[in-house]
Amino acid sequence: MDDMRATYMYAVGDVRVTDAPDPTIQQPTDAIVRTTRACVCGSDLHPYHSMPASEDGAAMGHEILGVVEEVGSEVRTVSPGDLVIAPFALSCGVCEFCRAGLQTSCVRGGFWGDPGFGTAGTQAEAARVPLADGSLVPVPGVGADADEALLNSLLTLTDVYGTGWHAAHMAKVGPGSTVTVIGDGAVGLLAVLSAKQLGAERIILMGRHQVRTDLGRDFGATDVVAERGEEGIAAVRELTDGGSQVVLEAVGHMPAYEQSVGIVRPGGVISRVGVPQYEEAPVGFGSLFGGNITLTGGPAPVRAYTEQLLPAVLDGTVDPGRVFDRTVGLEETAEAYRLMDDREALKVALRP
Amino acid sequence: MDDMRATYMYAVGDVRVTDAPDPTIQQPTDAIVRTTRACVCGSDLHPYHSMPASEDGAAMGHEILGVVEEVGSEVRTVSPGDLVIAPFALSCGVCEFCRAGLQTSCVRGGFWGDPGFGTAGTQAEAARVPLADGSLVPVPGVGADADEALLNSLLTLTDVYGTGWHAAHMAKVGPGSTVTVIGDGAVGLLAVLSAKQLGAERIILMGRHQVRTDLGRDFGATDVVAERGEEGIAAVRELTDGGSQVVLEAVGHMPAYEQSVGIVRPGGVISRVGVPQYEEAPVGFGSLFGGNITLTGGPAPVRAYTEQLLPAVLDGTVDPGRVFDRTVGLEETAEAYRLMDDREALKVALRP
Repeated sequence: MDDMRATYMYAVGDVRVTDAPDPTIQQPTDAIVRTTRACVCGSDLHPYHSMPASEDGAAMGHEILGVVEEVGSEVRTVSPGDLVIAPFALSCGVCEFCRAGLQTSCVRGGFWGDPGFGTAGTQAEAARVPLADGSLVPVPGVGADADEALLNSLLTLTDVYGTGWHAAHMAKVGPGSTVTVIGDGAVGLLAVLSAKQLGAERIILMGRHQVRTDLGRDFGATDVVAERGEEGIAAVRELTDGGSQVVLEAVGHMPAYEQSVGIVRPGGVISRVGVPQYEEAPVGFGSLFGGNITLTGGPAPVRAYTEQLLPAVLDGTVDPGRVFDRTVGLEETAEAYRLMDDREALKVALRP
Repeated sequence: MDDMRATYMYAVGDVRVTDAPDPTIQQPTDAIVRTTRACVCGSDLHPYHSMPASEDGAAMGHEILGVVEEVGSEVRTVSPGDLVIAPFALSCGVCEFCRAGLQTSCVRGGFWGDPGFGTAGTQAEAARVPLADGSLVPVPGVGADADEALLNSLLTLTDVYGTGWHAAHMAKVGPGSTVTVIGDGAVGLLAVLSAKQLGAERIILMGRHQVRTDLGRDFGATDVVAERGEEGIAAVRELTDGGSQVVLEAVGHMPAYEQSVGIVRPGGVISRVGVPQYEEAPVGFGSLFGGNITLTGGPAPVRAYTEQLLPAVLDGTVDPGRVFDRTVGLEETAEAYRLMDDREALKVALRP
C-alpha cells in the first residue's frame, strides 16, 4: 500500500504530519479525492486545547477542495478529474433529513475523522469520501489550477461560509433586518457577509481585532463594537435602542452566549453556529423565556447551501475567501495551528 | 371608600378572601371592570407551593371576564356595560411590541398584581384595568347573563386558550404537522385544540389523568402517552419513528424540558409556554445544538390572538371552556386552590 502525508493530533498542542496509507475505495459509494486545498478550522482549536493524549492520534481536518481521482461503482454525480467541494458533514442526499436540507442529521452520514464512520481527516494529501453522490459538489469549469483567490473562496463553501449562512438563514434574516454578529473569526465574518446578502439593513459586528473587523466592514458590517461583556451589551443596546432583533453567535463559549442573551431584543432570535463548549446555559424567565426569545442554530448543513452560494462565488460578486490570510504547505500544518491559536492568522489554508 | 371582597395569598398554602378597597379610576386610561368570572391558574400554584410568608399578602388572579363599570376620560374602545375580556398581560396597544403582537413585552404594560404597575389581582369582585384601550376586548352581543358554557369559553381567552395557541403559533404548527403536547393541564389541552385548529395531522398528548386526556382526545389528540421520563420518550419516539417535529411544553418543570429534548426530532422545535421553574437547562451539543433544535416560546401575548380566536368561540365551533370542570363562589377561592393543587379539579372558575 502506498503512503501519503496526513495530519494527526496526539495531545494538547501536539499536531504532526506523518506517513499514512493512501486512501482506497472501500464502498461502491466512495470517491477518492486528491487535495487541492485543505485548512485548519476554528473548531480544530478546541481539541488543540483539550485533547487527552493518545498514542494513535486523531486524524484531523474536515474541509477539502480537491480533484476526484477514483470513484466507486455506484457513484453517479462526480467523475475522475472533477474539482469538487466536500462539506464538513458527509451525507447520503436522499434520506428525510437530507431532503429537508438538514444533512448534518443524515441517517447514513457522519463527520470526518469519526472512527465509527470510517473516514480519516482532510488535512492530508488525499481523502476517501464516503457517500460521494450526496456529499460532493462538482465545480463546473474550474480546475485545481484556478487562481488562489477563487480556490480560497471555493474552500469556504466546505464549512465557514455555509456556517455563517446557516446562522443567518436559521434566524430568518431578510430585507431590513437588524443583525448583531458575535465573533470576528471566519464564521462570524461570513455571517456578516451572509446577512448582507440576505438584505439586512444594519449589521453590528462585535469583535476586537481591527484587521478582522475591517474585513467585516468590507463584508457589510455597518457598525463595530469592540467592547465585550456588560460594556459590549450596553453598547449594542444603545445602538439598537433596546436590543438586536437577530443575534448570530459564532463563538461557542459561554460569555458569547451570555452576551447574546444580553443584547437580544424581546421577541428576537439568537442563532448559534459556534460549537457550544458548555452543556447547560440560562434559558429561564430571566434570560430567554420572559422576552419570548427564540434560540436556534446548530451544526450547519452546508451541503444544503452550496448550489445557492456557488454562483456569486464563481462570478466574483462575493469573495468569502478573503478570510484566508495565510496559505502554508501541508508539512507546516502544525505551524498553521499555532498561527491560528496565537491569533497571528485568521484562517490558514493548507496546500499539499 | 367602599369595600369589596378580594383574594390574597399570605404564605405557602394560605389563601384568604378578605375585604379590600373598591378599585377606582386612577389614570385617564383606566377602566373599572366588575367581575363576571375569574379563575385560578396553574401558574398560581407555583407561589402556592413556594411563597415566603408576608403580612400584607399578595393580591391574586390575572384572569377576568367582566362588565365595564366606569372608564377614564381617555378610554375610547370600551364603554360602561360592555362585557370584556382582560388578558393576563396588560398592554398599551400602540408601542412597537404591541404592534408586533408581543404585548407581554409592552413598554408601558405590566402584569396583574405587579406592585410597580399598581394593579391588584382579579380573584375579586372588581378590578382596575390600566391601559384599558390596549388591554380590553369587548365581546359584542354577549352579556354577563350568557350561559355558563359560553362564559367559561370566553374566560379561557384571558389566558389558557391564548397560551396554548401561542405555543402552537410559535412552533409554526400547520397543515400536516406532527405535534406532541407535554402536559394535560388546561394549557396543554388547549395547545391540543390549537394544534388541531391549525391543521396538525397527528397530535400526541402526554398526560396521565384519563379524564383530562379524554378531553384532549375530544379536542383533537390522536394519541395519548401516559408514560413519563425515559419510558415516555421511548413511546413517543416509537410512535413518531424517531421524534416529534414539534413539541409544545405546557408544564414548566425541568423533567418536562428534559422530556421535550428527548422526543424532539432533528431540525424540530420545542415551544415552551409553561413558566420555567428553572433558570439553567441543557442547550449544548448533546441536547439542542447537535440536532439543530429550535427552542422558542414565552409568556403568551394572548391579547394578540383574541380577535382571531373569538369567532369560533362565539359560534360554538370550539368549546375551550370545557377545561373548567368546577365553578365555585368567590368566598370559596381557597378551596378552589386546594381542588386544583390536589388535582381534584382541572381548572376552577370563580363566580362573585
